[in-house]
Order: sequence, then C-alpha cells, then structure tokens
Amino acid sequence: MKKYMTRQELHQNIQNKKSFLCIGLDTDLKKIPRHLHKTSDPIFEFNKQIIDATHDLCVAYKPNVAFYESLGSAGWEALERTADYLKGVNDIFTIADAKRGDIGNTSSMYAQGFFGAMDFDSITVAPYMGEDSVSPFLQYEGKWVILLALTSNKGASDFQTSRLTPNPSPKGEGGETPRLFEQVLKKSQEWGNADNMMYVIGATRAEMLADVRKIVPDHFLLVPGVGAQGGSLQEVAKYGMNKECGLLVNSSRNIIYASDKEDFAAKAREEAMKMQNEMEKLLWKS
Amino acid sequence: MKKYMTRQELHQNIQNKKSFLCIGLDTDLKKIPRHLHKTSDPIFEFNKQIIDATHDLCVAYKPNVAFYESLGSAGWEALERTADYLKGVNDIFTIADAKRGDIGNTSSMYAQGFFGAMDFDSITVAPYMGEDSVSPFLQYEGKWVILLALTSNKGASDFQTSRLTPNPSPKGEGGETPRLFEQVLKKSQEWGNADNMMYVIGATRAEMLADVRKIVPDHFLLVPGVGAQGGSLQEVAKYGMNKECGLLVNSSRNIIYASDKEDFAAKAREEAMKMQNEMEKLLWKS
Repeated sequence: MKKYMTRQELHQNIQNKKSFLCIGLDTDLKKIPRHLHKTSDPIFEFNKQIIDATHDLCVAYKPNVAFYESLGSAGWEALERTADYLKGVNDIFTIADAKRGDIGNTSSMYAQGFFGAMDFDSITVAPYMGEDSVSPFLQYEGKWVILLALTSNKGASDFQTSRLTPNPSPKGEGGETPRLFEQVLKKSQEWGNADNMMYVIGATRAEMLADVRKIVPDHFLLVPGVGAQGGSLQEVAKYGMNKECGLLVNSSRNIIYASDKEDFAAKAREEAMKMQNEMEKLLWKS
Repeated sequence: MKKYMTRQELHQNIQNKKSFLCIGLDTDLKKIPRHLHKTSDPIFEFNKQIIDATHDLCVAYKPNVAFYESLGSAGWEALERTADYLKGVNDIFTIADAKRGDIGNTSSMYAQGFFGAMDFDSITVAPYMGEDSVSPFLQYEGKWVILLALTSNKGASDFQTSRLTPNPSPKGEGGETPRLFEQVLKKSQEWGNADNMMYVIGATRAEMLADVRKIVPDHFLLVPGVGAQGGSLQEVAKYGMNKECGLLVNSSRNIIYASDKEDFAAKAREEAMKMQNEMEKLLWKS
C-alpha cells in the first residue's frame, strides 16, 4: 500500500494513464440514485461504485468535505470509509477538499484529522491567516498542501484580484503591483515548494493561468471549474500546462451525476472517458 | 427552547450577566483530566461539566471544530452532543468556530451542517473566496456569520494588513488606501449587516480595534487572543467597546485547562469568574 505520492510519481501516473483528471466526489444524498438509499451507507456505496468504474481514467479523487459534514457524524463516517477505500486503489492521489486554515495549534488539529486519521495525500487550505495557519500541514512528510490562490467563483473578484500596494511603496519602480492571488503565490514559496505545495486556480479565469505560471512554473495546479462552472479544458491546457503537465483538472457533477439511474457508474465512466480522451490529445500536443 | 438570538438579546444577556465572555471549547483528549477517559464520551463529558460550571459567567460558547474533527466521526458525535446540550442552556450564544468558506453550492452544505443539523447560532467564515462563499450562511434566518477580518496570529501580517490599491486608482484622492482586513470589513457590509454579521478581530492587535470601529461602529466583534496568545482585555475594551458593548472576548485554554485534576470544572469556574469580574469593571466604566 502506498505511503505517499511524490511529484515525479504523480507525473508518471499522468503519463501512464494519459490523463490529468481529478474526479470530485461531491456526493449528495439528494442526487444519488434512489436504489442506493436501501444500502446501509448510500454515500460510501455511491463513491465505491464511481471509483471502481473510473479509477483507470483519472489520477486523483477529491471528496468535497462539506457534502459529508452536512450529514453530521454519519457523513463523516462515509468520508472515512471513502478515504480508507481510496488507500487501496493504486496510482491515485487523494485530495481532501476542506478549505481549512486557522491559528497554528488549530491547523495542527485539522492536519491530524485529514493526514493522520484519514491519511489523505493532500488538503486544500485557505491562505487568509498566513504562514502559521498553513505550515502545520507541511510538517507531515510526504503530504501536500493545496493552497487557494485564484478560485473559480464570482466572489474571487472581491479580494483575490485586488492589487496590493507594496510596503514600503516602490518609488519609481516600474510595472504593476501584484494582485492578492499573485502575492499568495509569491509569499507561500517561503513556506513550501513544488514538492509539497500545489495551488487552486479556477478554470473560469484560464487566461490568468499565464500570469500564474510566471510565478510558479513548476508547481502542480488544481483546476476546478471545468464543466458545470463553465471553464474550458483547452484554455486551461493552453495557458497552464508545464513540462510535467502540472495540472490536475477537476470535474465533479458532470461525471458523477451523469445518470441518476442504476447505470450511474457506467455513465460516469463514459463522461470520465470523454475527459480522458480530450486530455490525451492535449498531452500529445504539448 | 430558544430559536435564535438577536443582537438586542445578546446585549441584554451581557448586561444581565455583567460579562462579555465567550468560552472556547478547544477540547483535546490529551489535555482533559484522566478520570474522564473512563466515560463513554470523554470529550462531551468534559464539555458538559465545563458548561454546567460556567454558563452563568459567560454569554457564549465556541467549540473549535478542528479539535473534534481530529478525532474523526467519534469527535463529530461529541460535537453534535455538545451543540445539542448547549441548545438547552438559556441565554447562551453558540459559535461553531469552523473557518469555513467555499463556492456557493459547497458553502450551502456547510451551512446545512452547522445551522441545519447542529443548530449553532453562528459560524466563523473565511472571506478569501468573497461574497458567494459567505452569502449561503446568511440565508438562514436568525443565524449569524462571524467573518474573519484581522486574526490574532503572527501570519495575520502576511496578507491581512497589506494595503490595497483602489481600482481604478484614485487620482488626487488624499488619505491612505485600505488594508485587506479593512476592505473585508467594508465590502462585506454589502452582504450582511450588524444584525446578522460579526467580525473576528484578534486581541493581539488591540490598537487596530480603533481603526475597525471607524468602519463597523455597530457590529459585534469576536475577539480571540486574550490570555494564552498574549492580548490584553483592558486594551480590547478601550479600543473596541461600543454602546452595546459590541464585544465577545474569547478565552479557551486559560479557563478550560485551569486544572487537569478532578477539580477541573471548579477551577475553570474560578478562572471564568476572574474574567467576568474584570469585564464587570470594564462595562461599569463604559
């Protein structure tokens, strides 16, 4: 059973599978097929069947923790069972999409939950509280922080794209001041590196991936927002791909809810395969 | 049993109890008295005894969700039991200290968990992802968002105190540009108001409370960082108090871990009473 996954191993999996697909497990009791409700743990049963049907077409799974939390301790159990099941699947990178971040001793507790108890490979972390809210996650050898930089939602424009005034102010310095998400990319390189940190960059702002790559040429980027949120895979690859691919493109709803009937897993496989086919072409071109 | 708590009711409780103390339930299996480990749910048992011993001296309790999550589904059950127990205690405002925030459909799921299933009065939310990450929490009538603005940790200086360049740039405008936390205070007033939103402002930067009050004179502020983190209650009151008090000052470790023996609840009461006595003087002065 794998202990953890390095950047090289992740790149190797992308080459072997000809895919940089991450499947988001945003598993919602209201959306899964009715027949699963008869099972003792419908959420886990749904995830298991999706994973069984798609794991050769993707390199990562990303349970969206909110969906499990919304069901209380029963949901948390389903998350634990899913994490445990994923540990038994070879060549898969696991992401707890939790958007956590708090003062040091509290972030340590979150790290203990997601890295210690559940053994996820990575967790998404919000940068607002700065270094000591992020570094406790980086203290786990072989584990990854995926830091929010530029997200895929409308509210990303509220603060993330605001320009900062350097302090002290740069008299006579030419050029533009950094936007907040660029400052997050820059500053966080003092905390981690391309072997233990990735960034969330939304597909809905694909052209900004070029600006992102100026700052973090080597880091992997986790890219949500393709599909349901409107981002384009071609654009993401055009502006964001690096020599090791450097992309994990997430799709959730388009794949896992392709059907709400008994054929849901087969239909999810069909949708995942469409994505994988597109990705294979993009990898070939690069 | 109370349905929710208004700003007026919270102020009334502060006047009645002569206290604006919030007790943080950062309950850690490694720190609670050993004899509790024999009970079936040591975390809940600890919380229950702390609550029973202190609820007349404080106006709010704030379970720190990370501490429960670190224990997996068993911890989540202890959190649910604690939330349920708190609902039966009169004149208490409850805060899920969770620092959540994600795209709209995901924040809705978090809201469902903390407001629907567990019925907390409020939740702490991170602002990085902007309006649509916060507004799903505001859609619950009578519930509160407590938005991170200026936190108590060292990393608060990494981004929160950076100055923003207004866009378009203000030709000829005098005065300073806002810092990120000030922009969070300003912008978020488009989303909520003093009757459904509070802000986290760390006690370790008490003098900045004067700047905060220029922007949000009427809002309640949740102030962590007094005690273990070094903030001063006098300074917080001096710069942050408004005509309705407008402060919830949190203390966690100093109170709940005053003793690790069988007398822990009595010792916690002693520490809470010291805080309440200080607060009574400060309320009298104002």
